[in-house]
Amino acid sequence: MSDLFSMSLRDVLRLSASSEPTPGGGSVSAICAAFAASMAAMVSNLTIGKKRYKDVEEQVLDIRDRALCLLSRFEELVAADMAQFQRFMEAYRMPKSTEEEQERRELLIQEALKGATETPMEIARTCLGLLEMVCKLAPIGNKMAISDAGVAAYLAEAALNAALLSVDINVPLIKDSKYAEKVRQEREGLVKQASELKERAISIVSSRMAGVS
Amino acid sequence: MSDLFSMSLRDVLRLSASSEPTPGGGSVSAICAAFAASMAAMVSNLTIGKKRYKDVEEQVLDIRDRALCLLSRFEELVAADMAQFQRFMEAYRMPKSTEEEQERRELLIQEALKGATETPMEIARTCLGLLEMVCKLAPIGNKMAISDAGVAAYLAEAALNAALLSVDINVPLIKDSKYAEKVRQEREGLVKQASELKERAISIVSSRMAGVS
Repeated sequence: MSDLFSMSLRDVLRLSASSEPTPGGGSVSAICAAFAASMAAMVSNLTIGKKRYKDVEEQVLDIRDRALCLLSRFEELVAADMAQFQRFMEAYRMPKSTEEEQERRELLIQEALKGATETPMEIARTCLGLLEMVCKLAPIGNKMAISDAGVAAYLAEAALNAALLSVDINVPLIKDSKYAEKVRQEREGLVKQASELKERAISIVSSRMAGVS
Repeated sequence: MSDLFSMSLRDVLRLSASSEPTPGGGSVSAICAAFAASMAAMVSNLTIGKKRYKDVEEQVLDIRDRALCLLSRFEELVAADMAQFQRFMEAYRMPKSTEEEQERRELLIQEALKGATETPMEIARTCLGLLEMVCKLAPIGNKMAISDAGVAAYLAEAALNAALLSVDINVPLIKDSKYAEKVRQEREGLVKQASELKERAISIVSSRMAGVS
């Protein structure tokens, strides 16, 4: 597997558009989530060191560091998503001539399905963390750049929903019904919370853009 | 201005997270829209040449070519957005000692504001075109990859809304009220249509993932 992040942006887009299975939807969701995190970091960086925002500098420094951590985490999750996909394909290609082989193959497929569920779930959880952070940044970040906190909110929610489509494919194939049910419940909570946080962030950003605060 | 698309994905993310003003929210929206277009192209490429999808091959070939055109268009719009921002900053930095200089500066600022409105509007319009295309692809694309058409829909709508935040900053500063009103009306239409098209695409994708068709 090549390191996607060392490739030029142009080549990543071309690879993504090709019939190559990776990067697929999970990885592309995490890449866009990384861009969302980069916008939160940029707004923070444009706030830090400005006299007018001296009172919130400590908070914004924390937010900036957290945004950069989330950006790195999304990069790791892109790599994890691509690796999971390879594991999944390898499991499907296992021999299935004897009963023993069939059992072994099924076991590996089930493990791969859980992995290919866990990674997009983690992408979605990390997007939720990003949205929580954007809600903290939106009221205090530099007003001149605050629309970009809104950009972060829109993209983070979309990345969360997009990543969960990979969960929706895999969960129905998982035989561990307890695990599957747990994932389904968490999934619903993530979607609901993300929608609320995005609305809140956009509402704050819009007020500040309109000059209310 | 460096060519963003020749830089590594890692460096683009780091530059975007820094206090450098470009790439800002408009450019990042267009980059994520390009990733959405790449997903539509990937689903098409995974459909073309498959026996099971022979009947829709002509349509899907057209969709694939259109997706790649849109991808290139988003790349152009990233460059246009970054160039507009530079023009805007240059206009603000113009001398304003004499009345003549002030008039000249104000004229250039007003021109730059229109440019910095037109580019994100064009990003939004192109996202709408992508969503229309995804609605055509969703019912006929390879079912094994159809979730990635959903990824394209989520990301394209978010990119549209995110790009329009740049419009919302600039329009109140534009003195040509006829132009400003025209933009406001078109803006509302774009948001509404995008929401409907995304819902339609996700509904089709969900049915097909559930095995209904």
